[in-house]
Amino acid sequence: MSQDSRICFLGDSFVNGTGDPTCLGWTGRVCAALAAAGRSITYYNLGIRGETSMALAQRWQGEATRRFAPGADNRLVFCFGTNDTTWERGRVRIDLADTLAHSRQILSIARTLAPVLLVSPPAIADPAQNQRTQRLCQGLQDLCADLSVPYIDEFMPLQQSVIWMTQVQAGDGAHPQAAGYEEWAQHILQHSVWQQWMTP
Amino acid sequence: MSQDSRICFLGDSFVNGTGDPTCLGWTGRVCAALAAAGRSITYYNLGIRGETSMALAQRWQGEATRRFAPGADNRLVFCFGTNDTTWERGRVRIDLADTLAHSRQILSIARTLAPVLLVSPPAIADPAQNQRTQRLCQGLQDLCADLSVPYIDEFMPLQQSVIWMTQVQAGDGAHPQAAGYEEWAQHILQHSVWQQWMTP
Repeated sequence: MSQDSRICFLGDSFVNGTGDPTCLGWTGRVCAALAAAGRSITYYNLGIRGETSMALAQRWQGEATRRFAPGADNRLVFCFGTNDTTWERGRVRIDLADTLAHSRQILSIARTLAPVLLVSPPAIADPAQNQRTQRLCQGLQDLCADLSVPYIDEFMPLQQSVIWMTQVQAGDGAHPQAAGYEEWAQHILQHSVWQQWMTP
Repeated sequence: MSQDSRICFLGDSFVNGTGDPTCLGWTGRVCAALAAAGRSITYYNLGIRGETSMALAQRWQGEATRRFAPGADNRLVFCFGTNDTTWERGRVRIDLADTLAHSRQILSIARTLAPVLLVSPPAIADPAQNQRTQRLCQGLQDLCADLSVPYIDEFMPLQQSVIWMTQVQAGDGAHPQAAGYEEWAQHILQHSVWQQWMTP
């Protein structure tokens, strides 16, 4: 019997897997791969469509900690930011400095509770927003280095993925279908930071 | 473009899909079938392993309502009870009367917020607990009739499912693997109460 791992994935629609008709997204695919490898995985998907870092900061801790089990290998994976860099009513929804402040608040608490990993927001079909998101990714990477939180960049690999970008452009401009999420999942599973983080 | 349906599934490990190596459970399979039929579905899985009706009553409303989107077809599906009828330290975790009181509290509020449906707890591999769960199912059915909340019994169909009972017995005594959850999903999808409830 392998270790009882319970992973909470926290973030926005990309954590939820919005647009994926298989209802797995990258998070479900990653957990299914772990289960196929013999790991005992409980998969908690706590992505909320449209949510910014500000709203996430207010709700993640209660939702995650009530899913932790005493003695289990409880883990936290965050992925957010795209809704912060969205242009709405003549401005971005959340300024870069505020997003980074929320992120610092979230990760500073999270790392005291369980092993934490941050996954960057992806590239989408909006070049102007992608520029803002790329600046955010740099800030998140620096923050994670400062807090010693493992960080995986998905912005660049997904921007370079023909499957991802094609499905995003063919869809609502942000979300792919199954093949795009499969790209994301495979990149996570093959990433040394992920593999090291998940080593029992 | 079909209606934007957002379904929160609230309950315990059977909502979570615990034991299913595909990480879909019956809830993910049901939503994938809706998506395959052309429905626009956002799938929010809010099952928590080991949770009783008492803990569910305290957390469901906050978690569900923050996932509702203005103008969307927001929906609530509940499934709980097995942890209440579990024998622990010389007694059941939650007495039948208390489970029904929590259930009335949950469903009375829920039906004022969104279309609600209750799915009964399943049969498992423990005959004594099954007797208690079957009494609970009768109480839940009566409660739903009283509150005009649609109710689907999964106790009997799963008790009669060779695939379900075989996988449950081969596993931890409560949870099946993929084929068992597929049985559950197919029963829901073919049930007239479900079909009527999901009619746009």
